[in-house]
Order: sequence, then structure tokens, then C-alpha cells
Amino acid sequence: MASIDLNSDLGESFGPWHMGDDAAMLQIVTSANIACGFHAGDPAGILTVLREAARRGVAVGAHVGYRDLVGFGRRNMDPSSAELIGDTIYQIGALQGLARAAGTSVRYVKPHGALYNTIAQDARQAADVITGIKAVDASLVLMALAGAPIVAQAREAGLTVVCEAFADRAYNADGSLVSRRLPGSVIHDPAVVAERMLRMVIEGRVIAIDGSDVALEAHSICIHGDTPAAVVIARTLRETLEARGVEPKSFIDVRHG
Amino acid sequence: MASIDLNSDLGESFGPWHMGDDAAMLQIVTSANIACGFHAGDPAGILTVLREAARRGVAVGAHVGYRDLVGFGRRNMDPSSAELIGDTIYQIGALQGLARAAGTSVRYVKPHGALYNTIAQDARQAADVITGIKAVDASLVLMALAGAPIVAQAREAGLTVVCEAFADRAYNADGSLVSRRLPGSVIHDPAVVAERMLRMVIEGRVIAIDGSDVALEAHSICIHGDTPAAVVIARTLRETLEARGVEPKSFIDVRHG
Amino acid sequence: MASIDLNSDLGESFGPWHMGDDAAMLQIVTSANIACGFHAGDPAGILTVLREAARRGVAVGAHVGYRDLVGFGRRNMDPSSAELIGDTIYQIGALQGLARAAGTSVRYVKPHGALYNTIAQDARQAADVITGIKAVDASLVLMALAGAPIVAQAREAGLTVVCEAFADRAYNADGSLVSRRLPGSVIHDPAVVAERMLRMVIEGRVIAIDGSDVALEAHSICIHGDTPAAVVIARTLRETLEARGVEPKSFIDVRHG
Amino acid sequence: MASIDLNSDLGESFGPWHMGDDAAMLQIVTSANIACGFHAGDPAGILTVLREAARRGVAVGAHVGYRDLVGFGRRNMDPSSAELIGDTIYQIGALQGLARAAGTSVRYVKPHGALYNTIAQDARQAADVITGIKAVDASLVLMALAGAPIVAQAREAGLTVVCEAFADRAYNADGSLVSRRLPGSVIHDPAVVAERMLRMVIEGRVIAIDGSDVALEAHSICIHGDTPAAVVIARTLRETLEARGVEPKSFIDVRHG
Repeated sequence: MASIDLNSDLGESFGPWHMGDDAAMLQIVTSANIACGFHAGDPAGILTVLREAARRGVAVGAHVGYRDLVGFGRRNMDPSSAELIGDTIYQIGALQGLARAAGTSVRYVKPHGALYNTIAQDARQAADVITGIKAVDASLVLMALAGAPIVAQAREAGLTVVCEAFADRAYNADGSLVSRRLPGSVIHDPAVVAERMLRMVIEGRVIAIDGSDVALEAHSICIHGDTPAAVVIARTLRETLEARGVEPKSFIDVRHG
Repeated sequence: MASIDLNSDLGESFGPWHMGDDAAMLQIVTSANIACGFHAGDPAGILTVLREAARRGVAVGAHVGYRDLVGFGRRNMDPSSAELIGDTIYQIGALQGLARAAGTSVRYVKPHGALYNTIAQDARQAADVITGIKAVDASLVLMALAGAPIVAQAREAGLTVVCEAFADRAYNADGSLVSRRLPGSVIHDPAVVAERMLRMVIEGRVIAIDGSDVALEAHSICIHGDTPAAVVIARTLRETLEARGVEPKSFIDVRHG
Repeated sequence: MASIDLNSDLGESFGPWHMGDDAAMLQIVTSANIACGFHAGDPAGILTVLREAARRGVAVGAHVGYRDLVGFGRRNMDPSSAELIGDTIYQIGALQGLARAAGTSVRYVKPHGALYNTIAQDARQAADVITGIKAVDASLVLMALAGAPIVAQAREAGLTVVCEAFADRAYNADGSLVSRRLPGSVIHDPAVVAERMLRMVIEGRVIAIDGSDVALEAHSICIHGDTPAAVVIARTLRETLEARGVEPKSFIDVRHG
Repeated sequence: MASIDLNSDLGESFGPWHMGDDAAMLQIVTSANIACGFHAGDPAGILTVLREAARRGVAVGAHVGYRDLVGFGRRNMDPSSAELIGDTIYQIGALQGLARAAGTSVRYVKPHGALYNTIAQDARQAADVITGIKAVDASLVLMALAGAPIVAQAREAGLTVVCEAFADRAYNADGSLVSRRLPGSVIHDPAVVAERMLRMVIEGRVIAIDGSDVALEAHSICIHGDTPAAVVIARTLRETLEARGVEPKSFIDVRHG
């Protein structure tokens, strides 16, 4: 039976400010990328979502980001290697402590926002994040953008890498994501999203924005839960997958080559 | 042979701002209370001091504090239990991650500043810190003020507690510290400090500010390194102890009842 | 014709996190207490709400708070006088700059959360806030809790003070607020809230929680906008006041003794 | 009689962390670039240095920076225009409030660190800073790098611009600064620094790193005070200028075309 991991960004509330419907998403996803306090998340709130993830058997990942709360980690920055290595370790360690308190453990690392986009391409910052992960626990899996240079870089450094596709994003003919600035970059129809991802899981292909048929190999699908509409897309995707015989299942429980 | 632990607050620099002579103090102390980022300390700087502590075999403790950087954790605050438990776990976890990266591990927890003083007396906040420690790792030792109510509270909760004396502070006849606001509360003469602590180690007694002879049982002595004069006091204390047959040794390496 | 000021806390979003329906509330209130960045509010978001306040002719006040973002300024703290004076000036100045850029100006200061509650009673922290306000602009009005000691203290210090009542809160027989921890402390029925405040404006009295009739003199009414239900209460209050011949009007435009 | 402005970065301490010898530098400089809290500086500390600047008649400028405390504003960032405009206004306003409380006023703006370097070249971020300055007070002078594109851009936008030279830095043949990464970029000999700046003031020329003679027109000289050696260079420069008939004088007191 085919299976696929569904991941989403959770624990992004901060103090009095609420973000996303974590409870709803924890009923849909199989992997939870949990904010670690640098771009979002406060310890008490993170602990609450970790307990719920533990209760539901959802795998936990450290969603490490740049130290930029007001910018939500979405602004490019150029930390030194010492800073980025230290920040990576600190965030993973903090989440490990909270996960232990919640009766679960951190199984993977998925960088967030501008850091995610930067390390997909920038070998120096990618190396720093890889170094940080290995320094805490070399068995942690790195979740990265399917097709990006960091995938090979991290594997060469000895990390296990899981590639992810984005459920609601259009792809270019070369397998890269269509920039959010361009029309058509985001797909809003839940049924279309579900059909695209189903085909990606079963055939390893998606139709690109120019109509061409592109290979896309991913073992996890990123879905959003920050709006009610996003939750509907996520739920439709999961139900469609299940109805068509694809089991949502954490990549942690699946052996990859 | 008698032995005593010497502890000091380290890793208190932040970004471009330097504080204390960590390198000098790591040649003197046997336990390093290392800031965890909430009242002081940034990941890269903490990692540097952890590596040096590992190299010198100095035991590492998590110096957890209130989330108040500009106030250096010295201002009273009243976090909720959920907040204080979460903040305690987060800080310990972050330091554990960095310690692992530095080839060492966190062995104890010593709260800092206003949190230290508050939990010495305040049973609610003390319970929150104890809960946080146990949730991460119940084998972590709590370092607390000799004679304070938290000592019994933490032991009843199942934690191992190590009591500490303050090398350069005067004591009241009831064994409590003389308030810093009162004259004579701080002792500046290195030789006097050393003799007092030597007697405390060997006889378990100090002369109080009113001249009475007070029992003071402590297995660790807190010394400062934030000024050159403080480093001189610390060094004199260590040399005096060694010259008089008392071995500076981490409490971790000593079995306490 | 009778008039009354209606004030509400606005500008409390932060970075990606949204809070409150500022646009709706600016159609209801006559005075906007705008967060200054220490407990809530980021410069770009504050600027947006200031521009809308300017466009609608709503008076602007500096909603200064403790430097505690994650705690939303709701946790008690004990800053030194130098810190609290500096923090007060800094926040007012920052808002003045943004207000100038938005084509309006800061007319009053209303402390927020734990600072508001503390200075109502604590003469030392109250003095620090008063000192800070006077140091920036002694013509700024202080908005304070009707009946609290700070009212006389600030007037003696030379500040103009406007007292406020809380629309949805029950009062004790001595004119103080019923603690939020007690049942019945918050009134949820929009019609009841409106009738109570109408009587307060016209007769200067409210029925206390024990049924007694209490004098309550206030020139401003604090209303909330943080939930859709709160906005309904606020709108009902304004409509009821207008229907009964009470004009919502900023206290800035009314001469008080 | 020739005159020149001497400026330096002050107010860069933060909470318990001390940086620079502000008291010594205020005896040397004629303009003080004072941190505004985003990359350094806390309100109480800023107020102290502003009072001393006021007492000594030193002109005050807002040293605005990126919101990056741990990175000291030295890391590149890409805030949106709304963010950068808002942050610029907020910081200037905050300093204006503190300056008013200290009996002085903000006369100019000098961006700090990575923001300074970025806007020297990047027209978009430069435009945001210029917009922010004009929104608060269009009479504020912008202090910028001599020869950089921002000088013309700001003048076209209607701002008065004062160009500065760097006392201890080597220049390229095209009038740009030699990168700090290259050998010889920083000049450490106080006498050499003083002679170079003296010639720059009198002849408008410096010898570039390749030996060529370069035109360098600046009405302010930036000097450092972050180390004892830096203070010696600053003092030597001032004494040399005075001994050779050049009066240290704020550019505010001099009419520029």
C-alpha cells in the first residue's frame, strides 16, 4: 500500500497572539513542524501542542528559524556561521527538552521561512544548519525542498533527508516552485490540490504551470493550517488520499533508501 | 580528604556585549552555572564557554532565569505556572543541546537572580521550577540557597539538592544572607573570604554579622567573576582551600546523602 | 448636551500576529489607546492604525506598558525608577514620532495591563510614570482608574487626569472593580452594559455587585474590541448613548476642571 | 578659521552590559550618534548619555539600526518598505522623546552598521529611510558616507546631507573605503590618523591605499570609542586638529551649501 507523509507548521502562536488551528491540523497531519521560539512559539504554547502531538502519535520536527520574531523569520538575514550553528543547536535542544516533557521526541528538522529558502540554495548557510543538526543528534532527519541543492549536500554530510512537495503550489517545468509573486503560483481549489498530490504520490509527477509533465519525487507533502480555507484544503487532501488507497503516514515510520 | 564545589555564573555575554572573564573562572571553579539565553547568553557564546568547560572537566549547570534580557533577570516577575514551567524546560533543553554539541552534558540547574531569590521562599514558583526540571530530567540536581525553604520542598518532590554558600556575603545569626542594602553585607577582603569559607568547609560554621557563630552547611560555594577584583577573590579562595588540604571538586563527583 | 469619551486599546497586533478589529473599533471610539511596542505593537502596524485614527478624528493616546512582549504586559514587574521613567519616555516618544508621520499627535497616556493596575495603587511606580510623562510633555493627559490613589497623586504633580470607567465590569460598593477572579465580575449582556453606562454618564452612579447604588464619576468609558462579541457590546453602547442624547466625544474636546 | 565635526557612536550599552567610554568621548566629539534601542541602547542608559551630551553642548543624532539586538545591527536584513519606514520613524521618535526629557533635541540621523552600509548603495532601502526621516521631521540632517549614491538621492528628496569620512580607515583610489577584510584597511597609528584627517579637512584630499592622491570631501569625521586605544586615537585627532587651527565644531552650527 502506498503511503505519504503530511506535514504542517504548528506551534506558531506567541504569548497572547494566536495563529493557526493546531488542534484541527493535528487530526490531519502525520508530521508537525513545531516552532522553536526564534521566529514564533513560546515555551508554554509549544508544550501544549507537543502534548497533543504526542497524544495523537504525530511525529515532531524542529521548525528552526532566523532570530526575527517581528518578521516571523521571513526576512533574509546573514548570520555568521558561529551564530547560525549556535542558533540551530539551541532551537533543536529547546524543542527536545519540551518534547521530552510532553512524552515525545524530536525526530526531524525543517528550517522555516527565509532560512528554508536560503539554505535550499546557499551552501554556506546550508552547511551551518547541517553542522548544527549533526552536533545535537546526527540521527535527526532533515526535511528539505525536493530538487534543491541542499538535498545532496546534506546527504553527503551524512544526514538522512526527506524531500517535500508543496500541496498548493504550482511548479515550473524544471521542478522548481513558481514564485509567489507570479499569477497562478498558489492553487486554491481543494479538489485540484488533492488530485495533483495524489498523482505525485502514485506516479511521481505533476503538471507544471506551462502544461508540461514534470517528475517530482517527495516523501512528504507540506500543507497549511493558518486559515479556515487552508484547513479545508488539508482535510480534503487527506480524505482524497485515504479514499484512493494512499495511507497518510509519517516518513519516520517508512524506510527510505 | 575534604572537598568542596566552587561554582560561578558564566556565559553571561550577549551578542557584542562582553561580561565576565569566563576563561579565567574556568581555571578556578569546578561547576559552571551557564546562562541559557533568557536573562543573558547567546547560543554562539554559550557554545564557546561550554567547549572550554568540557575541555577543563568543569561540571555544567543550567542557569535558568526570567525572560527579561534588559533587566538581566534581576527584576521580580510573576509568570503563570504554565509560563514558568515552560520557560524552565525550554532553557534547560536549549543548554542540553548546546552541551551535547560541546561534548559535555548538563548536570544541574541553578536558577538565576530574581528567580533564585523568589523560589527560595515562594512555594508556588518553586514548585513550577521543580516541575520543569523533573519534566526534562529528574536526575538533574537543583542548586539552592542553604537554609531556604525550597531545599526541603525540592527534596520532597524527589530532586537531589545541593546547598550553596556565598563566598563574599555576610550571614545573619539565623543563617540567612544579610541584605545587600545593608552595610557590611559584602566582604571584599580576599583573605577574609578565604578563611571564612575554609572554616565553613571544615567546621560547617561561619561567624555571623552580629558576631555569633552560625551553622552553615553547604556543598558548594558561589564565587563571582564579573570584575578583576572578583577573579582575585575567587583565585585566592581556591588557592587557600588547596593549601589547607581542601580539594575543589564538583559535587557531581561526590556522593551526598 | 451630555457627552462622554469612549476609549479602547488598539494597535495590539505584532508582526504576523493579528489582534482585535481596529478598523471596526475606530468607527466606535473617540479615543484610541495605542500600543507602543513594549507589550504589543510593531511600528508598521502602529502607523497603519494611527493613519486610520487620524482620518476618523479619533484622539490618540500612548498605551505604555512593561517591557514584556510574551506576557503582553500583563505580568507584574518591578523595574527601577530609572528604568520605568526611561521606558515611559521612550514609548511616548516613539508613538509621537509615528503619530506625527500619520498626521496626528499623541494627546494622552494610558498605562496598560499590569502597569495600569500597579500604578493605580503603588505610589513609587506611579511617580515614575508621572515623571516620565512630564519629562516628554507636561500637557499630556493621564487616563487613570476612577477612584484610584494615582488620580490625586498625578493631579498634585501637575498633570491633567481623566478618569475612566469600565463598560463591562462590575463594581464593588466602594467604587472599586470586582476582581476578575470572582463570579459576576464581567458583564456580557450588551443591553445591560449600555444601560449601566448610560446611567453612569447621566447620573454619575452605577449599581454595585451587592445591589447598592454607588457614585462613579468618569469622563471616559473603556470598551474592548478583541473579540467579535466585544465589538457588538461596544457598538450597542455607542448606539444606545447616541439614541439617548449622549454624544460620544473625546475628552480632549471637553473642558474638565 | 577651518572647522570640522567629529562624530562617534554612543549610548551602545544595554541593560547590564557596558560598551564604550561615553563620558570620555563626549569630551572629544561634537556630534553624538546615539543608539535608539533596536541594535543597542536601553531607555535609561540612553537618557543618561543624552543628559551628558546636553550638558556638554554636543549635537545629538539618532543612530537608527535594524531590529537585531544580538547581531548589534551588523547583519544584513531585508525589511519591507513598510517595516523599514516604520522602524526608522519609531527609533527617531523614541530618541526625540528621550532627548526632550534630557533638555536637548535630535538634530540628525545616522543609520548604523548593516543599515548604513546597505543604504549607501541600495536605493530602495535608502528611499525607505529617507521617507521615514521626512515623515518625522524633514529638517533632520542625514549623515551619510561621503561619495555614496545615497548622498544625491537624499538631497534630491529634499534632505540636507552631511558627508562623513572615517578617521581610521584606508581609502581606495576611487574614494571608497577599503574593505575591512583586506590588509591595511584600518589605520592604528594615532599620529597617522590625525595627519590624514588634518589634510582631509584643509586640502580635501587623502592618500589612497595604492599611493594615489584622492579627493575626499567630508564635513564630519567618524571616530570610535569602543576601546581604550580608540579613545587615544580620538583624543589625538582632536588635539592635533586644534593645535593646527582646525576647530572641532558640530556641522549643525555651520552652514553648508
